[in-house]
Amino acid sequence: MSAKDLFHQAVKTALQKENWLITNDPLRLPFGLFNFYIDLGAEEMIAAEKEQRQIAIEIKSFTAASTINEFHTVLGQFLNYKLALKIQQPQRVLYLAVPVDIYESFFQIDFTKEAVQYYQLKIIVYDPQNEEILEWIEP
Amino acid sequence: MSAKDLFHQAVKTALQKENWLITNDPLRLPFGLFNFYIDLGAEEMIAAEKEQRQIAIEIKSFTAASTINEFHTVLGQFLNYKLALKIQQPQRVLYLAVPVDIYESFFQIDFTKEAVQYYQLKIIVYDPQNEEILEWIEP
Repeated sequence: MSAKDLFHQAVKTALQKENWLITNDPLRLPFGLFNFYIDLGAEEMIAAEKEQRQIAIEIKSFTAASTINEFHTVLGQFLNYKLALKIQQPQRVLYLAVPVDIYESFFQIDFTKEAVQYYQLKIIVYDPQNEEILEWIEP
Repeated sequence: MSAKDLFHQAVKTALQKENWLITNDPLRLPFGLFNFYIDLGAEEMIAAEKEQRQIAIEIKSFTAASTINEFHTVLGQFLNYKLALKIQQPQRVLYLAVPVDIYESFFQIDFTKEAVQYYQLKIIVYDPQNEEILEWIEP
């Protein structure tokens, strides 16, 4: 399995452990000439409220040589997908899944923290080894 | 000369033809652990107002195989640089230089137009052959 597939599977399993139902793998958003493919779509039944929360998750491994260059792509992808969801599935909330080692290093740099805050990146911190969600972060 | 260098030189010459003074090539913004390098910094003396306009220009050739994937990176880079300028040089306005063929095709797609509007991308449309600026677009 490629590193990308390993991280994908880890986040999928981690979400299932927290009672999310994976509904789309990937979630396709058609825009005429092209499609966006967000890594996962999931939903959760909240019993008390009888209300269904729907989310989309873009899974990042941050394995590129330059983390800052990868961060440009990740930010742009997140914001394009967020806009695409706003147009087609406004009820669905987008999260970026970030491995814990990257979250505890690169995402603690002042500039990264500013960008996460300023562009309102919602983040799921995951442990790829134990296949667990460690934190849900909503700036 | 590489394609990247050719486009870089074309935009530089085009700006000079419109009486911009190239002050930085590239424009470096240091952020502790890393630096951002925006392709060009330029300024113009507005005689009537005795006021100096300062701009930064990120030059794109859009030569990647997938234009939509390149657009993710371009959007993220633009927004990270915009935030970096806001912190360090708030008087300087950031533009994205886009070759005319890409502006007239990819940038006319509905989704791209939405994204340009929503994320307020300021664009310089340039002609790489004739080394000319064709349009300044401020959404």
